[in-house]
Amino acid sequence: MPSNSDNKTFFLGIDGGGSKCKAIIVDENNTILGTGISGPANPLHGFEQAINSITESAELALKDAGLTSTQLQDITAGVGLAGVNLPILFEQMSNWQHPFKQMFLATDLLIACLGAHNGEDGAVMITGTGSCGFSYVDGHPYTLGGHGFPHGDKGSGAWFGFQAANYALMSLDGLKAPSRINEKLLALLDVNDGLSMVETIAGKPAAFYAKMANLVFDTAEEGDQVAKAIVEEGAGYISGVARQLEKQQPPRISLIGGLTPRIKPWLDKDIQEKLQEPLCPPEMGAVIFAKQQLALQ
Amino acid sequence: MPSNSDNKTFFLGIDGGGSKCKAIIVDENNTILGTGISGPANPLHGFEQAINSITESAELALKDAGLTSTQLQDITAGVGLAGVNLPILFEQMSNWQHPFKQMFLATDLLIACLGAHNGEDGAVMITGTGSCGFSYVDGHPYTLGGHGFPHGDKGSGAWFGFQAANYALMSLDGLKAPSRINEKLLALLDVNDGLSMVETIAGKPAAFYAKMANLVFDTAEEGDQVAKAIVEEGAGYISGVARQLEKQQPPRISLIGGLTPRIKPWLDKDIQEKLQEPLCPPEMGAVIFAKQQLALQ
Repeated sequence: MPSNSDNKTFFLGIDGGGSKCKAIIVDENNTILGTGISGPANPLHGFEQAINSITESAELALKDAGLTSTQLQDITAGVGLAGVNLPILFEQMSNWQHPFKQMFLATDLLIACLGAHNGEDGAVMITGTGSCGFSYVDGHPYTLGGHGFPHGDKGSGAWFGFQAANYALMSLDGLKAPSRINEKLLALLDVNDGLSMVETIAGKPAAFYAKMANLVFDTAEEGDQVAKAIVEEGAGYISGVARQLEKQQPPRISLIGGLTPRIKPWLDKDIQEKLQEPLCPPEMGAVIFAKQQLALQ
Repeated sequence: MPSNSDNKTFFLGIDGGGSKCKAIIVDENNTILGTGISGPANPLHGFEQAINSITESAELALKDAGLTSTQLQDITAGVGLAGVNLPILFEQMSNWQHPFKQMFLATDLLIACLGAHNGEDGAVMITGTGSCGFSYVDGHPYTLGGHGFPHGDKGSGAWFGFQAANYALMSLDGLKAPSRINEKLLALLDVNDGLSMVETIAGKPAAFYAKMANLVFDTAEEGDQVAKAIVEEGAGYISGVARQLEKQQPPRISLIGGLTPRIKPWLDKDIQEKLQEPLCPPEMGAVIFAKQQLALQ
């Protein structure tokens, strides 16, 4: 085993998603010494790209920490990745000749949940570009939704944007009542009519639609009935996810993801009251996961 | 100009869509002498493929008619194509060094409408894989919907299938009430659970979802409340399209496309009563268009 002249034990935590990969390096007390960020790391969209992003973010974190005499091969890594819920990708990533001392692989959902509850049992609802529910209680992982865009992921940023575009196109045809969504969406997309809107949105991925989500919440908060109905339907789904997760009896439940501040006020009041702030980010959840797995060895 | 030893004037009518291209050859009285069918002819999905399909279907129709001494260059063609509502594709197709004596190019919507009303003014609602409304009154074409999948085309086969898959995934998660749609969809897709369903449907095009549409109507007709709600929403949209088209005061209105027999009984009663049988198929509409354009020369 190579010497570690920094003379301490460090851990890497990796949170790899579809658009970026975050890394942290921590000491034995989980004090963050450095961070790194790189590109997409979902192996579903390319194995080579994923492993390159993971390695790059880890190297950047190491450099940021100023640990000049420490190498990746000296460090145990917890790696949480989108996509590895699919068994074939989990196996492929597990077989990677990784540069770390040891690698513990988990889904992005598990590390998010472990992070939010600092390694204890709990549940999370994630609403960002996509949406998903997940609980981890007594070693039992349970996933709800997260089926992807456009056929699933209700209550996600992409879903809100999609509903808005869908409505606006019918409304501009005179087939639905006017909504302030229409003018705002035309302005955001920099187009003049429905036909140009179609040319702009056709075939676009979830991330494109997710950029329209704030507009829907803004319009709902101004009192527009159409926007309110869309927001209430999406938030109602997330409240439903929370209720379903509660059946697993998680000690804590948190809402995380980029849409959190927008959607939280629209959830059912009793759900809002039960929500607890996430304690740590997913990349720290990855560190916690690695330490838990080490303790089991 | 080459001689035409069959000593008669013939016309070709072409209806080119995203999955197939139909051709008919007719005499001066629009008596059908032969038919041909070939592959996809929407230039949006490939110019070369489109022109090859058009030529192939025309050659097949000529052969079917037994007109051995007549060539494509002896015949005037009316060509109605999906995709040429986009100006750039209309121009590209217009510049095609086509094999016909003369070619008159129109959208698939216009030839469908001209066919349905035998060249007279009127309106059509089309519900097949996609959905669209179109009227042609006093030389004025008017299009409603037809925005494409998945962001538009409500009330189309693809839309019904998409709604069913969407519902089933949430219902199998326990987030919506059970529906007979669930079991039927799992059986149709030959999968056992929601996760396998997602793997099967993710990224699929409109034509894939359209194959699930009959299942939704079957289930609605058995009295399933969820399926009924989906069918009523989709049919309600098509009724709305009809009402909007009526503002153009078309003398006749018809419902055409593969979903016609399923959706017609679910339209608003007053709309059902106003529907008139289409008089001719779209490929005959293409012939009528060519003859109308010739008369204007």
